Amino acid sequence: MPPLPATESRFDRLQRIESSRIFQIVVISIIILSALTIGAKTYELPPLAEKSLGLMDIGITLFFLIEILFRFTACPNKKRFLMDGWNLFDTLVVVGSLIPLDNSDAVLLGRLLRVFRVLRLVSVVPELRSLINALLKAIPRMGYIALLMFIIFYIYAAMGSMFFADVDEFLWGDVSIAMLTLFRVATFEDWTDVMYATMEPYPLSWIYYLTFIFLTAFVFLNMMIGAILEVMSEEQNAEEAKKAHDERDEIARQLQAVQLQLKELTEKIGQSRD
Amino acid sequence: MPPLPATESRFDRLQRIESSRIFQIVVISIIILSALTIGAKTYELPPLAEKSLGLMDIGITLFFLIEILFRFTACPNKKRFLMDGWNLFDTLVVVGSLIPLDNSDAVLLGRLLRVFRVLRLVSVVPELRSLINALLKAIPRMGYIALLMFIIFYIYAAMGSMFFADVDEFLWGDVSIAMLTLFRVATFEDWTDVMYATMEPYPLSWIYYLTFIFLTAFVFLNMMIGAILEVMSEEQNAEEAKKAHDERDEIARQLQAVQLQLKELTEKIGQSRD
Amino acid sequence: MPPLPATESRFDRLQRIESSRIFQIVVISIIILSALTIGAKTYELPPLAEKSLGLMDIGITLFFLIEILFRFTACPNKKRFLMDGWNLFDTLVVVGSLIPLDNSDAVLLGRLLRVFRVLRLVSVVPELRSLINALLKAIPRMGYIALLMFIIFYIYAAMGSMFFADVDEFLWGDVSIAMLTLFRVATFEDWTDVMYATMEPYPLSWIYYLTFIFLTAFVFLNMMIGAILEVMSEEQNAEEAKKAHDERDEIARQLQAVQLQLKELTEKIGQSRD
Amino acid sequence: MPPLPATESRFDRLQRIESSRIFQIVVISIIILSALTIGAKTYELPPLAEKSLGLMDIGITLFFLIEILFRFTACPNKKRFLMDGWNLFDTLVVVGSLIPLDNSDAVLLGRLLRVFRVLRLVSVVPELRSLINALLKAIPRMGYIALLMFIIFYIYAAMGSMFFADVDEFLWGDVSIAMLTLFRVATFEDWTDVMYATMEPYPLSWIYYLTFIFLTAFVFLNMMIGAILEVMSEEQNAEEAKKAHDERDEIARQLQAVQLQLKELTEKIGQSRD
Repeated sequence: MPPLPATESRFDRLQRIESSRIFQIVVISIIILSALTIGAKTYELPPLAEKSLGLMDIGITLFFLIEILFRFTACPNKKRFLMDGWNLFDTLVVVGSLIPLDNSDAVLLGRLLRVFRVLRLVSVVPELRSLINALLKAIPRMGYIALLMFIIFYIYAAMGSMFFADVDEFLWGDVSIAMLTLFRVATFEDWTDVMYATMEPYPLSWIYYLTFIFLTAFVFLNMMIGAILEVMSEEQNAEEAKKAHDERDEIARQLQAVQLQLKELTEKIGQSRD
Repeated sequence: MPPLPATESRFDRLQRIESSRIFQIVVISIIILSALTIGAKTYELPPLAEKSLGLMDIGITLFFLIEILFRFTACPNKKRFLMDGWNLFDTLVVVGSLIPLDNSDAVLLGRLLRVFRVLRLVSVVPELRSLINALLKAIPRMGYIALLMFIIFYIYAAMGSMFFADVDEFLWGDVSIAMLTLFRVATFEDWTDVMYATMEPYPLSWIYYLTFIFLTAFVFLNMMIGAILEVMSEEQNAEEAKKAHDERDEIARQLQAVQLQLKELTEKIGQSRD
Repeated sequence: MPPLPATESRFDRLQRIESSRIFQIVVISIIILSALTIGAKTYELPPLAEKSLGLMDIGITLFFLIEILFRFTACPNKKRFLMDGWNLFDTLVVVGSLIPLDNSDAVLLGRLLRVFRVLRLVSVVPELRSLINALLKAIPRMGYIALLMFIIFYIYAAMGSMFFADVDEFLWGDVSIAMLTLFRVATFEDWTDVMYATMEPYPLSWIYYLTFIFLTAFVFLNMMIGAILEVMSEEQNAEEAKKAHDERDEIARQLQAVQLQLKELTEKIGQSRD
Repeated sequence: MPPLPATESRFDRLQRIESSRIFQIVVISIIILSALTIGAKTYELPPLAEKSLGLMDIGITLFFLIEILFRFTACPNKKRFLMDGWNLFDTLVVVGSLIPLDNSDAVLLGRLLRVFRVLRLVSVVPELRSLINALLKAIPRMGYIALLMFIIFYIYAAMGSMFFADVDEFLWGDVSIAMLTLFRVATFEDWTDVMYATMEPYPLSWIYYLTFIFLTAFVFLNMMIGAILEVMSEEQNAEEAKKAHDERDEIARQLQAVQLQLKELTEKIGQSRD
């Protein structure tokens, strides 16, 4: 590394600190510590431990506050900092923890906000960040399949609550409860108990369950195959296009050399004829 | 858009309306409204709400009727309109709702028909339509595997009802009930309860269940792998054939240029010799 | 089709009958009929129906016997007929049904043999036959993975029956029972009940279950991925090798033409120099 | 095989024995015998059989000891022998069995060590060894996905034990028990029982379970697709790179021949002009 110029701006120094390995490790350690205090609070603890956890919590909140202010100051483009979803999420989670909590409902909300601090790990570790972005990119391609699945569930739920509501109010009472029951059937969770109950008044109701299971499994399978193929063909196209290009270039270069040689030859002969 | 000619025919105007974005959105909204009224009916409702749902239902039925008549009028080829499966399905579902309902059985049938109106969403949204067509295309390639699966199920069910009918009449009474029980075993739903019951008189019956599970899982796995490969190779062939063609064309063109140059050269030399 | 020569041999005529579509359809129909009578016997039937099923059974057995004798006569190479696994299987199943049955055990065996007649459908329909052959080809590539799985199961079963035999004799009594219990855990069938029972004396036994589930799931996943890849690369190699060959041939042919032209040109110049 | 030279060193002879097929088969047989004795001990046995098993165990331990010493002696590079993980594992398992056992805890430990002897099968059969190495290579690529999964589990477990600890202390008592419960939910094992219990005080808690199931299933699916793609593209790259190289070489060679011919021709014409 060349010696730093004396006129290094404040921005540069802050950014150098922000992107330094030590700063990263400290932030990640504090987030893990925060996650551990959240976990520790779910255990029965002696009063002293509870108190020290409370103090630790205040310390962590302060650290996060300072860290975000620091990153905001270090960022040369304030607007882009505020537009970035991850920064917004970080700020919300940290500022939310600052609100003083009095009644018990707010206490629960405060604890919930502290739980989401664990997600800051995702926003800080770049590998997890890019993994999440890749997962988010996979959502739209499943959009219409999800809609189709929802239509299948809705139709079967409407039919189910129409016929089976008298059999078991708890499972088939209305269309939303019936959808939950169908999701249970789709996960094979004690689905035969549900079926045997409705097969008593309606002996043919096994058709309802079997068609539903086959339909959802079939659509799901096709969705999976579709997802594999889509990602695969994308990747392959990029790779192959590059490779094919390289190859063709190599051969095309040689062919051009041949054409050049021929041109020269033709000219030579032209001269020799003169 | 250029100004419309004054002599625009009635057909053209109707088709313009039919394919307009607003018309599409209105139809989709009404279908979703129809789905919601079907769902709402499964809840316990005050009499007033029930009545307004009834009125809404009549309104929706009328709208669907007018919409189909409109689409029929707008279609230049009446025969093809009637031959198309989706249109036929739409017409059936809508006309079915028009039949007056008196006794309770017919009421249930009428409500069932209204449930299938939700499927009109599939027939109206083009993306869902092409998705369904893609799924339908995937069925035949699973035909023989499905037949093989059925043979495995049938043989095991016949064996099961032969040996285990005395153990549990409810699960192994006859071959059809035994197939249902085996489907339950294939979904791993409380299959050990079934097995432990038959292992008391027949201690070796675990062989029956384990071979069945391995066979079905193995055939299913191979089916899935087969499906992935088939779709993949199809897609790849189409793509690669195109790409390879493009590449070869490029090189072949250059080679032809070389051959042309050589021909010219040969002619030149021929002249120079003269 | 040219007119058949008058001297058509007996073999040719028999083979023509055997491979005729009508003969195939008749055989398949009789097999399906045989399957239906097997299924029908599992129902409670009136004495008359039972009797007619018995007569039908004799008829079917006779038909199968004649069919196999016919196929044996029609086959020009008797040795190869007997060596073919499918024919051997057919013969065994049919001849087995001929043995007279007296005591009840033999009756059960006889009924079991009749069940396997359904498998004759696989041996007669060529598509199913090739499907089975494809599945059989997939077995060896899973050999070592299966061995590894067995080792994992055996080690965990030995450990399980060592520690948990006192907790539940029925689930962990000895190493073979423990393997069955572990297979149940691997299918997620009420595995938490098994775990909660052993977690009382051994609070850390969840580690045993979780590591087992992760290990088997991980090995299974890798097996599946491996299977997909192997089949895929096989198919692709065959296809691509062909395609690449075609392409290269095309270009190589053009290059040879260029070389030929050059050779002629060189000769011409040689002559012109003279 | 050519006659062995008289000056064959001791090392060479030992290595020849070690790598001989007979030696391999003997070792594998003894390992399998060892596995069988471990399994046999889990059954109730008459005193005589127990005693002979004990003697057999001593014999097997001695054989393994001699085998490892032999392999150590046969290995020309002692350092590399000790660095190899498989050899270290073998030595540990065998030496561990030599420690004399007095109190009951140590007996259990001794039996546990004998169980791990079965794993020696993996270290001795080369195919299993390379399979395990392949599986180990697959672990790092799942690292960040596993971390993400853990974060999801942790956040949901913290939320679960926060809200549901009062509902069921046994399932949601603290964050670690809640994670075990969530793993159960992820395997669909009686997950509806867990949900129905918490839906009584919190009717909307189905959102908690459904989002959890969808998140884990979605991340898992993407992990699987990712794994398939990664392995596939690796393999393909290697293969295609080779093939493409071969092809290009072929064409490039022909093109060079053309260029050479042209060069000669040019020279000839140059001479003819002179």
